[in-house]
Amino acid sequence: MNDVETAATSSTSSTELNFIVERRFRAGNGLLAGVELRALVFDVFGTVVDWRSGVIREASALAAERGWSRDWAVFADAWRGRYAPSMDRVRHGVQPWTNLDGLHRASLDELLEEFSLAADEADRSRLVHAWHRLDPWPDSVAGLTRLKRRFTIAPLSNGNVSLLVEMARRAGLPWDLVLSAELVRAYKPDPATYLSAPTLLDLHPEQIMMVAAHLDDLAAARSHGLRTAYVRRPYEWGPDQQAPEPGPDDTLDHIVDSITELADWLAV
Amino acid sequence: MNDVETAATSSTSSTELNFIVERRFRAGNGLLAGVELRALVFDVFGTVVDWRSGVIREASALAAERGWSRDWAVFADAWRGRYAPSMDRVRHGVQPWTNLDGLHRASLDELLEEFSLAADEADRSRLVHAWHRLDPWPDSVAGLTRLKRRFTIAPLSNGNVSLLVEMARRAGLPWDLVLSAELVRAYKPDPATYLSAPTLLDLHPEQIMMVAAHLDDLAAARSHGLRTAYVRRPYEWGPDQQAPEPGPDDTLDHIVDSITELADWLAV
Repeated sequence: MNDVETAATSSTSSTELNFIVERRFRAGNGLLAGVELRALVFDVFGTVVDWRSGVIREASALAAERGWSRDWAVFADAWRGRYAPSMDRVRHGVQPWTNLDGLHRASLDELLEEFSLAADEADRSRLVHAWHRLDPWPDSVAGLTRLKRRFTIAPLSNGNVSLLVEMARRAGLPWDLVLSAELVRAYKPDPATYLSAPTLLDLHPEQIMMVAAHLDDLAAARSHGLRTAYVRRPYEWGPDQQAPEPGPDDTLDHIVDSITELADWLAV
Repeated sequence: MNDVETAATSSTSSTELNFIVERRFRAGNGLLAGVELRALVFDVFGTVVDWRSGVIREASALAAERGWSRDWAVFADAWRGRYAPSMDRVRHGVQPWTNLDGLHRASLDELLEEFSLAADEADRSRLVHAWHRLDPWPDSVAGLTRLKRRFTIAPLSNGNVSLLVEMARRAGLPWDLVLSAELVRAYKPDPATYLSAPTLLDLHPEQIMMVAAHLDDLAAARSHGLRTAYVRRPYEWGPDQQAPEPGPDDTLDHIVDSITELADWLAV
């Protein structure tokens, strides 16, 4: 067991854990020694923005106009529940490349049937575009703005480009550029997605840090040489949930509770 | 002859000409009627930044350190002179896809030989990256900042992504996203370059305006349905040059002397 693993499985506080991670980082572990961090790439849904509240808000607003009454939290969770299976169909070649708006639309059509909602074309388009209008977590804009001073920042998301651009314009996410699964026509964890960052930024993978609230995303990024920062987002799935804690198999360079805390660690 | 052509070949002033163009635009000419403008995409070298002064400045600075004495304006023009032929080799399949940094490096190696300069690897890399450190024209940042309030803005350049990102971070170009020939692995005027904008932004071509200081770039963009704005940049090739004036075959939606003037016309 290394320091992180020990820390993660004991009751070490977040601050202590970060100090241990930071010490390993500064000491160098072979991968990171002497390589200057230049860019940070971010998972978006759950990590930078609160998809669940946004979808509930948008669905509730439409429902009020249409006179629909349903549990919109259940609706939002059911829609997000179809996210991974829908990407799997593309990943496994069952379905040709379809961007996330397209996958969201197909899932929505099924879901509306399931919820017995008679939505017209305009309603469906409006709901698909709800995912373009998600609010950032309270620390996201401040954290990104600070990180941008020293580092190149970009989303590295399964969201399509127009979704990420419209979200950023509305929410004030100050990306330097937009990296998206759509650019390589493959969804994370396809290697092409992670490798698009060093390739397009002309950097070594170790000069780039992947930031995400999801341990599987970070494990995949790390397997391609990127550094990793885990952001705890306990409310991604609602107020009654907890953020998954890293376990013995999770090797992470930073573990933080917010993007501003990550900026603190990187001293910007 | 339509209004624009008449105006362009007579001595009509820039302001009068714009009014005529604007009137046609507002009246609608079939292509544009009733379609809301949503995004502007920009040629970069010559249109947004002054490549010539930047290359002269960077080459002179290196020369001062190395004790080299040459005419660096001639050097800059010769380097830029190899730009189109180097892309042609990729366009015609003589050479596999190579991004602009790669083409600049190959041209530079030839040029250093021609100028009898014994540059080492670090010098060569520094000169190639001079193209990442070009200054914007005086109106560019102010104009883009105003346009961004209402429209999505992006470069649509033959420059590679890392070049465009580093340039934007240094110069303060507030792009919403970076569109580049590198994303489609083809150089303008390949249709894939122009069509990447409506595809990735999920817009109709007529909702997008191409902004450039080069009439051939605008003609190609227009042939794919994009709106067009011509920016006169009389000093692109040095202080003694003039901006080419649109001729009878150039159909343009706007003709301006600066990006701020374009923002005036679009009322932002």
